[in-house]
Amino acid sequence: MHILNLMVKYSPALDRTFSALADPHRREILDRLAAGPVSISELAAPLDMSLPGVLKHVHALEAARLVQTHKRGRTRWCQLSRRPLDQAGNWIDQRRDRWERQLDQFVRHIDKTKGAKR
Amino acid sequence: MHILNLMVKYSPALDRTFSALADPHRREILDRLAAGPVSISELAAPLDMSLPGVLKHVHALEAARLVQTHKRGRTRWCQLSRRPLDQAGNWIDQRRDRWERQLDQFVRHIDKTKGAKR
Repeated sequence: MHILNLMVKYSPALDRTFSALADPHRREILDRLAAGPVSISELAAPLDMSLPGVLKHVHALEAARLVQTHKRGRTRWCQLSRRPLDQAGNWIDQRRDRWERQLDQFVRHIDKTKGAKR
Repeated sequence: MHILNLMVKYSPALDRTFSALADPHRREILDRLAAGPVSISELAAPLDMSLPGVLKHVHALEAARLVQTHKRGRTRWCQLSRRPLDQAGNWIDQRRDRWERQLDQFVRHIDKTKGAKR
């Protein structure tokens, strides 16, 4: 039972997402895109990065499926893909919840032990 | 204002956490530790990894401050550090919320436009 539970669960999607999130420039781009879609040049303007630098990060975020781009006329637009962010957020939230529950159980156990000693 | 908002915010703590989470073996170890502290040998037993392999990952998780270890007698115990997981989870949750809000605004805007056209 334990062995089945603990076999390493490979999730290339989570590997990709967390790996992309480990870079401050990519987080900054996602931060901007969370407020809505923008063109590549709008994205680059306030960032302290060259256009090729921004494009490199956008391509990496596209490969990680965190960002989608599409061309309209001469402009390339970027938008956030919510799904991988949800998966990564849910993974973390589930572990936080489990940790919280085991801490509650531990505190209840201590209280019970104290009660029994009185 | 925009420029100030969008300057890259360096957070070595988030870099470290997301980078550690990008590895399936490290996620598996955190998954186990979310259910409570265990000894290194208990941690290694159900995983399809050698003890040195597990130790390597535990050291990496310690360096990322996601795990704390301490020795009691001959046994080394591992436990999850909640704080970096909270920081990473909060970072993601804030972007999910912002994305949700801008989507709501967009839908309200479309509804308003439709209403005006009627």
